[in-house]
Amino acid sequence: MNKKLSTENYKGVRDFYPEDMAIQRYIFTIWKNTLESFGYENYDASILEPTDLYKAKSGEEIVNEQTYNFIDRGDREVTLRPEMTPTVARMVAQRRRELSFPLRWFSIPNLFRYERPQRGRLREHWQLNVDFFGISDIEADIEVIEIATAILKNFGLNDSQFEVRINDRRLMNSFFKDLNLNEIEAHQLSKLIDKKNKINDFDEQAKKIAGDNFSFDLKPNETIETVIDRLRKRGISNVVFDPTIMRGFDYYTGLVFEVYDTGSDNNRALFGGGRYDDLVKIFDQDPIPAFGFGQGDVTMRDVLETYNLLPDYISRTHLTICTLNEAFFEPASVLASELRNEGLNVSVDYSGKKVGDQISKAHKKKIPFVICVGDDEISSSKFTIKQLENGKSKTVKRKDIVSFIKKNLK
Amino acid sequence: MNKKLSTENYKGVRDFYPEDMAIQRYIFTIWKNTLESFGYENYDASILEPTDLYKAKSGEEIVNEQTYNFIDRGDREVTLRPEMTPTVARMVAQRRRELSFPLRWFSIPNLFRYERPQRGRLREHWQLNVDFFGISDIEADIEVIEIATAILKNFGLNDSQFEVRINDRRLMNSFFKDLNLNEIEAHQLSKLIDKKNKINDFDEQAKKIAGDNFSFDLKPNETIETVIDRLRKRGISNVVFDPTIMRGFDYYTGLVFEVYDTGSDNNRALFGGGRYDDLVKIFDQDPIPAFGFGQGDVTMRDVLETYNLLPDYISRTHLTICTLNEAFFEPASVLASELRNEGLNVSVDYSGKKVGDQISKAHKKKIPFVICVGDDEISSSKFTIKQLENGKSKTVKRKDIVSFIKKNLK
Repeated sequence: MNKKLSTENYKGVRDFYPEDMAIQRYIFTIWKNTLESFGYENYDASILEPTDLYKAKSGEEIVNEQTYNFIDRGDREVTLRPEMTPTVARMVAQRRRELSFPLRWFSIPNLFRYERPQRGRLREHWQLNVDFFGISDIEADIEVIEIATAILKNFGLNDSQFEVRINDRRLMNSFFKDLNLNEIEAHQLSKLIDKKNKINDFDEQAKKIAGDNFSFDLKPNETIETVIDRLRKRGISNVVFDPTIMRGFDYYTGLVFEVYDTGSDNNRALFGGGRYDDLVKIFDQDPIPAFGFGQGDVTMRDVLETYNLLPDYISRTHLTICTLNEAFFEPASVLASELRNEGLNVSVDYSGKKVGDQISKAHKKKIPFVICVGDDEISSSKFTIKQLENGKSKTVKRKDIVSFIKKNLK
Repeated sequence: MNKKLSTENYKGVRDFYPEDMAIQRYIFTIWKNTLESFGYENYDASILEPTDLYKAKSGEEIVNEQTYNFIDRGDREVTLRPEMTPTVARMVAQRRRELSFPLRWFSIPNLFRYERPQRGRLREHWQLNVDFFGISDIEADIEVIEIATAILKNFGLNDSQFEVRINDRRLMNSFFKDLNLNEIEAHQLSKLIDKKNKINDFDEQAKKIAGDNFSFDLKPNETIETVIDRLRKRGISNVVFDPTIMRGFDYYTGLVFEVYDTGSDNNRALFGGGRYDDLVKIFDQDPIPAFGFGQGDVTMRDVLETYNLLPDYISRTHLTICTLNEAFFEPASVLASELRNEGLNVSVDYSGKKVGDQISKAHKKKIPFVICVGDDEISSSKFTIKQLENGKSKTVKRKDIVSFIKKNLK
């Protein structure tokens, strides 16, 4: 026991003190409520997965350098999951005979990647994962994109603040084929298209890969047009065709989309997804059609801050009971028990400090109401409820405490 | 890509398919609601912690062999947290100047330990952690024990099914002191007392350690008597003094308790906790009084199964809209959007299968209501709602769908 132990947490991860946790729970609640309104079921798994699961996906023997891998005491290779898609593919593949397809599934896992921590990029983050398995029809694509927009609307964003940009992998593949590109050239060109909006000499660089006749004037295919049209009919008009949407992952097989922040100075892709029908192939199984997306908590929180859409923090404790002195600990705690049975969240102040200090502390903790308990209150069975936000007081009978507070609660 | 990739998960951890997840969420919801009714605030942290945090606690250089430790790519020693108490101590110590004491805090972290998986002992489990920081008064002890009983009651257990057994570390320490035991002997005797109820030759073995005059006839001290008495006054009468309650951890400094299952054939300790006032000492800080406990999800689920207290699974989706054929995908999806805006959770069947099959599938998924959409429904704006549990049907106007379903929802 020589040097002093640090109170710092591990680099690149977050502690959630109650006010941070309230924001986290707010984000998770909007996610859950939106997904459940569309009939999606919640699943989860452990963060620990066999490393083979990630080797298999890319067919490579070397796992990405950004993953957390270690060998356990039983000599097994273990990975802290860097993404949820291989896990959900594993779960679906494992029980595909018992599961009743189609599956509408969602999860909010924490994911890990070893990288230099920076704004919006942490070593641990949470990510909403949405998947619709078993429907190859375009209705699945439309529904999942509708969900992506419904989430942002439920967080309070309006149509002018974001835009859905869609493309189709099949369109791009036939475009590359028509250009007579080999695999390496197609890959180079797709990387270039992906960053088209960030560079000035796109045409010049593209011609180096695809020849002097190269021209990037793609038209949407029928799938894209139908999706845009049908979403419009459902009142979602901020959807456009954008042939620069490539999405990084190899597993997409059809429609892909990204949602962009268009209303702030910081235009950027917030999240995206697409169709990937081949995923369970890694388990040597027949394909299962799938359409899905992932959305990170760090980005979401950042967007809500940008648009000032985070709700003000308020304690989930409705009422604190202050005590005149130690003699009133007992009656205060009995009153608290009774009020809890009537549905209030109640704490009792056992600090033994002055009543004024007890009230200040409740105010600091953003608890909306206080009651003080002393001789007068016990003998009269009348209690003065102080609303800390505005300093107003109201004296009510014992039986009216709960109804008064519930009526005045925000 | 030679051998087939397994769909098995990592040994000793669980996948949560939707029906498992529903149970997990039920347990977490009862925990959260109970803790919030007592004014406790939710916090959280990452599962990744610097390994030093666990070395410090015991003052040992070697970390427990059951912990998951690894070296990250930046040569830092990292541990997957095996318990939450060092983490919460770290968080409280880090911000003790800004935090407004007392703190009533709770968390539901997942914890990791490398051990042979067996019934009730997994490599990953979730644990409710409850802590009341900053009050050395006995009121904190009473409140936290009251919470422990309130949780079980909120899960549906009655007073005859469990019992709180309490003891006091100070009582035991003075008992050992009166016996003139050295540290090693006291440790041996405490281990023996801990398993007194499981062995037949307790007296014999104890006399070997503490001498022939040893007699185990301890009386409760004033703290224990007061706690039992005050809890009785609050209607909690299943609390008894039990000098065999030792609790394994070194950090307890006062009252300790364990909650026992007494109603089933399988009498056993379910969970426990106590007072530990010295915890932030590992950070070279002045002590902060604390009283708390932890309760695991695996044990809790097991108890609820034993007493048949798990709620029946029912989907959170209220309604499935079946479609006569593909032509009705569009009107069905529009109806679904409208019903969602009115507060229902609605899915649409885009399978293109026969209506009978669509209804069977909804029933299999435990969705309570279905509506079928075809020409008649569109033209008349009347819909037949089928309640799948009892097979009853009712035809209602479009505007009455939501009120009918909400009225008949369990």
